Amino acid sequence: MAQLLSPPLKDDLDIVIPTIRNLDFLEMWRPFFQPYHLIIVQDGDPTKKIRVPEGFDYELYNRNDVNRVLGPKANCISFKDSACRCFGFLVSKKKYIFTIDDDCFVAKDPNGKEINALAKHIENLLAPSTPLFFNTLYDPFREGADFVRGYPFSLREGVPTAISHGLWLNIPDYDAPTQLVKPRERNTRYVDAVMTIPKGTLFPMCGMNLAFDRELIGPAMYFGLMGDGQPIGRYDDMWAGWCAKVICDHLKLGVKTGLPYIWHSKASNPFVNLKKEYKGIYWQEDIIPFFQNVVFPKECTTVQKCYIGLSKQVKEKLGPLDPYFQKLGDAMLTWIEAWEDINSPAKAALSQGNGVKKDESSTKQK
Amino acid sequence: MAQLLSPPLKDDLDIVIPTIRNLDFLEMWRPFFQPYHLIIVQDGDPTKKIRVPEGFDYELYNRNDVNRVLGPKANCISFKDSACRCFGFLVSKKKYIFTIDDDCFVAKDPNGKEINALAKHIENLLAPSTPLFFNTLYDPFREGADFVRGYPFSLREGVPTAISHGLWLNIPDYDAPTQLVKPRERNTRYVDAVMTIPKGTLFPMCGMNLAFDRELIGPAMYFGLMGDGQPIGRYDDMWAGWCAKVICDHLKLGVKTGLPYIWHSKASNPFVNLKKEYKGIYWQEDIIPFFQNVVFPKECTTVQKCYIGLSKQVKEKLGPLDPYFQKLGDAMLTWIEAWEDINSPAKAALSQGNGVKKDESSTKQK
Repeated sequence: MAQLLSPPLKDDLDIVIPTIRNLDFLEMWRPFFQPYHLIIVQDGDPTKKIRVPEGFDYELYNRNDVNRVLGPKANCISFKDSACRCFGFLVSKKKYIFTIDDDCFVAKDPNGKEINALAKHIENLLAPSTPLFFNTLYDPFREGADFVRGYPFSLREGVPTAISHGLWLNIPDYDAPTQLVKPRERNTRYVDAVMTIPKGTLFPMCGMNLAFDRELIGPAMYFGLMGDGQPIGRYDDMWAGWCAKVICDHLKLGVKTGLPYIWHSKASNPFVNLKKEYKGIYWQEDIIPFFQNVVFPKECTTVQKCYIGLSKQVKEKLGPLDPYFQKLGDAMLTWIEAWEDINSPAKAALSQGNGVKKDESSTKQK
Repeated sequence: MAQLLSPPLKDDLDIVIPTIRNLDFLEMWRPFFQPYHLIIVQDGDPTKKIRVPEGFDYELYNRNDVNRVLGPKANCISFKDSACRCFGFLVSKKKYIFTIDDDCFVAKDPNGKEINALAKHIENLLAPSTPLFFNTLYDPFREGADFVRGYPFSLREGVPTAISHGLWLNIPDYDAPTQLVKPRERNTRYVDAVMTIPKGTLFPMCGMNLAFDRELIGPAMYFGLMGDGQPIGRYDDMWAGWCAKVICDHLKLGVKTGLPYIWHSKASNPFVNLKKEYKGIYWQEDIIPFFQNVVFPKECTTVQKCYIGLSKQVKEKLGPLDPYFQKLGDAMLTWIEAWEDINSPAKAALSQGNGVKKDESSTKQK
């Protein structure tokens, strides 16, 4: 019976995967992902052929495609870093995005049942968030739960959910110093909860297992300048999370975290990570107070306007910390220009079919 | 072996129980509570004898005792309402308080093991809180968890924990309208997490299963004017929670919620509850914005100073809503005066032994 039902949001959601290798990990996700369209952003050497398992409907963009689609604006898309995933957000034509790393597998719940992470993200995105007051029984919209005594009735309608941040069993998402200190730590605790991150509170958004409403918050989901030629790495998703959270707070949108879990298979090299992170660890002590104090004027009524305002504040307030932030502020503006180019109604038609598009009925890229 | 170890904080914690009936519920808690001292606050008719099971060390205060100890200041202590529990906080000489309702029993974890709620509260109170930034893997101080990538290092020391708010399996803590709409709803979800409620976020604090550091936040744990002769009930713990949270935020103290669970056995009558609550449901729409905007001047460096400042703001800003808030603001001041009377070093000696004190070596009250 269940198989007769159409998968939820099948025609309204793209799965974005940044990768440098063959996508064999998709085999495990086949029962859950196959009905959906994939956007694969190939990182690194564009001459390398990436193998995608049979039967998936996908389009694949390598660096040459990124350069061709964006022209000079391609410099806002990171190279040799999973931050390149945001190019997939840019060229998607769908309302919702789910993005996942290629070292993430299907996790099991405490009853041993395989978790359909995508279905849970969709559930999270379609139910309201409650950022204005904390509910002690967690998500009040979940079956078997509600708002508890003392929760103001005027706030029970909630606000639209823009972001659903999922977690990871097995390898936790630790920074290099913590990896070095706790090389054997594994996350084995399944916490059966989804919650809204309260308004005014920042969080570390991890890009491994993440979904969002592209129409509500897409233009803020820029993963910054990381990797090749940049002084910093592994802060791409953090940067996007801080920018997106302050904009969500301003525009009265919700951010959820918790379920669903994926199985994170392999820890990255902590020595390599330390090299990528060390400037971020240092700069972050200024970046966080900066974001905690960001205020948007009333005229900022769209994500784009907020993001342009934010880019100016980044240059002004964080620029003195390091010239990198001048460059990042400029790249944030370029990103918004690229977003408008590709997503304005007039130009949207032209931008169709710029990648190598593949689906079940056409020849696969081998 | 374990029995040779002294129970944690045995000489530093009082268990406060408001009640109108025989305390047979203590039988189930005996393995966990017996080493500790109990303060029983008898509500209602003072001529009624309350039976306490053999072997518990306790002192019991009825209304006559409250009047005798506090004199004219006794009018700040509610009558015929579990809000009277705060009298126990006032007369305790210990650093920590755990308070529990007499319809709360020992819950079991998903493995069927009985949960020592008190031990978990103590663990929560002794580990720092993290109100300034959200950790997506919940309590970073718990075994098997840590701060995730992107968590600022300067914030990892955390702040002292003032309050540990525990939850309830079986009967959820719903307001009367939700009880009426969902009479059969039971909380069966065991969420294996403790988290800090972020700075700037209010929450509905329930007094059923609650622990706190009396030295850090005791004077803010006033449960207001409820019950007999008052226009409102069932907002006693909420009021204390909102007052305590804004003061914790100002004084850089932490509030945790989540584990431990207790088993809440019986739903109270929703029709009676509706009568008690309806003004609160209405007033709350003004009370919450009031608390969201409370600011304390820098001179407010102690809980007492903050609380006195808050009482003035309550009278000024909520007084226009209803004369009740003038009376409540006055009672808040009376409470602080009573607190200082009883807890100032000079007077503390005089206030010893005002209740009916019982312990294992003396005669039990039968």
